Amino acid sequence: MPSSSPRDSGVLAPVGVFDSGVGGLTVLRALARALPQEDFVYLGDTARLPYGTKSPGSIRRYALQAAALLRDRGVKCLVVACNTASAVALESLAAEFAPVPVLGVVEPGAAAACAATRAGRIAVVATESTVRGGAYQAAIRRCRPDAAVVARACPLFVALAEEGWTDGAVVEAVVHRYLDDLFLAGADTRPDTLVLGCTHFPVLEPALRRVLGDGVSIVDSAQTTAAALTGVLDAAALRRPAAAAGGRIALLATDSAERFARVGGTFLGRPLAPADVEVVDL
Amino acid sequence: MPSSSPRDSGVLAPVGVFDSGVGGLTVLRALARALPQEDFVYLGDTARLPYGTKSPGSIRRYALQAAALLRDRGVKCLVVACNTASAVALESLAAEFAPVPVLGVVEPGAAAACAATRAGRIAVVATESTVRGGAYQAAIRRCRPDAAVVARACPLFVALAEEGWTDGAVVEAVVHRYLDDLFLAGADTRPDTLVLGCTHFPVLEPALRRVLGDGVSIVDSAQTTAAALTGVLDAAALRRPAAAAGGRIALLATDSAERFARVGGTFLGRPLAPADVEVVDL
Repeated sequence: MPSSSPRDSGVLAPVGVFDSGVGGLTVLRALARALPQEDFVYLGDTARLPYGTKSPGSIRRYALQAAALLRDRGVKCLVVACNTASAVALESLAAEFAPVPVLGVVEPGAAAACAATRAGRIAVVATESTVRGGAYQAAIRRCRPDAAVVARACPLFVALAEEGWTDGAVVEAVVHRYLDDLFLAGADTRPDTLVLGCTHFPVLEPALRRVLGDGVSIVDSAQTTAAALTGVLDAAALRRPAAAAGGRIALLATDSAERFARVGGTFLGRPLAPADVEVVDL
Repeated sequence: MPSSSPRDSGVLAPVGVFDSGVGGLTVLRALARALPQEDFVYLGDTARLPYGTKSPGSIRRYALQAAALLRDRGVKCLVVACNTASAVALESLAAEFAPVPVLGVVEPGAAAACAATRAGRIAVVATESTVRGGAYQAAIRRCRPDAAVVARACPLFVALAEEGWTDGAVVEAVVHRYLDDLFLAGADTRPDTLVLGCTHFPVLEPALRRVLGDGVSIVDSAQTTAAALTGVLDAAALRRPAAAAGGRIALLATDSAERFARVGGTFLGRPLAPADVEVVDL
């Protein structure tokens, strides 16, 4: 529908959500639930996933290309749902896309961890690049300077989630191998909070909870990112009025619509068909 | 050293070897052992790995770009060490690079399987794209029309090999989950030969052998590709004379030299330093 002014166009424009693949659909799901009147355009850079094992330079270049495509689609705000891109490329993206607000998932994830921890001992599981970049560790210490933070790269969690093996003996064996030395430590040193620092990991939460037990709070960025997005849209007067309710979700991918639909359904929490996915070139 | 004619230059030129990442180093290792007088240039497209979950169009585009870089380096022959690219893009590569000979790993792997099987029942483990493309199944049936071939996508094997988890409880649990239904079948239907249809998989061979037992022959493309390369070089009169012995190996990657060196050592079978790897842009 034609807009009467650029300002109206901004309000009615969709929110852009970007991820390296399908994992960010866990974030999209939380955003759409928290802001049901908004339209969303989600882009998964599936032709070049995963970002988590790549170098900072490559990640930055890929993220800027993906964000440019979403800007061309007229988004009013950009959510970087990929932890790796948030950890490595957020400043570059914000500088490039000002005045369009850019929101990452690392700060909201760190805030969730600081809210959940009792003893201030926090473990972060993430991809190699996210762990090496140290963004989570820094963000947690900014909000809780006395926190004891340990970060561990768990790349096989990504493969398990993509394969749809979210439960059972294999997942539990992998969890034990990655995390036993951290969580079998003495009661006065073991973390009381685990941050899922990769958008693929929330689908593994039941298995993680079973292995780690009730004493550990498991948090991810999805809920707090939704709260942060609400704040950003309100602050910029960009929130869509309830009277102009949208609720549409457009899904874009840079590779096979078939695979995006098949694997993505696990993360979005509802079945997807290839026809729901538009393939774009970066 | 300056060459006296294009023909001499051809003979002394290096062999190009291309893979999506570091897995092809298992093939390079076999080639360099079989042809110790040759020079090799290996390119791993690590910025865009893995290929195995991507669409045929993306795989073809990436493979052509990688091969063009090797052609610019003056290679006399191109070995496509990546099973996925061999299965999907070999015809495009051969057409584009004629008269430079292009050799894939699927036909040699299929030949190895047909030589090893007694009962003609062959299982192929590979990436999603390789299995879907059907190239192994077709190549095996060309050399043994009565073969019973079953192909299974095992994407987690790639992640395990990249993580360096080549043995132990996790690997065995994954092998059981992927393969038990095939190999626990009756003695008159279970495969007697397993083809490792991905260059990452040879590092998992001890674990596979332990789970599957002695009754199953495990074959891969590396040895037969070395034999095929010898044949191709001889046929084109491109084999380097022993008197001009080279033996140099140049390693190129499209992303982080540090990661290539760290993970690649497992596959090449000797330690690598980041300084051994030249980073190139495609």
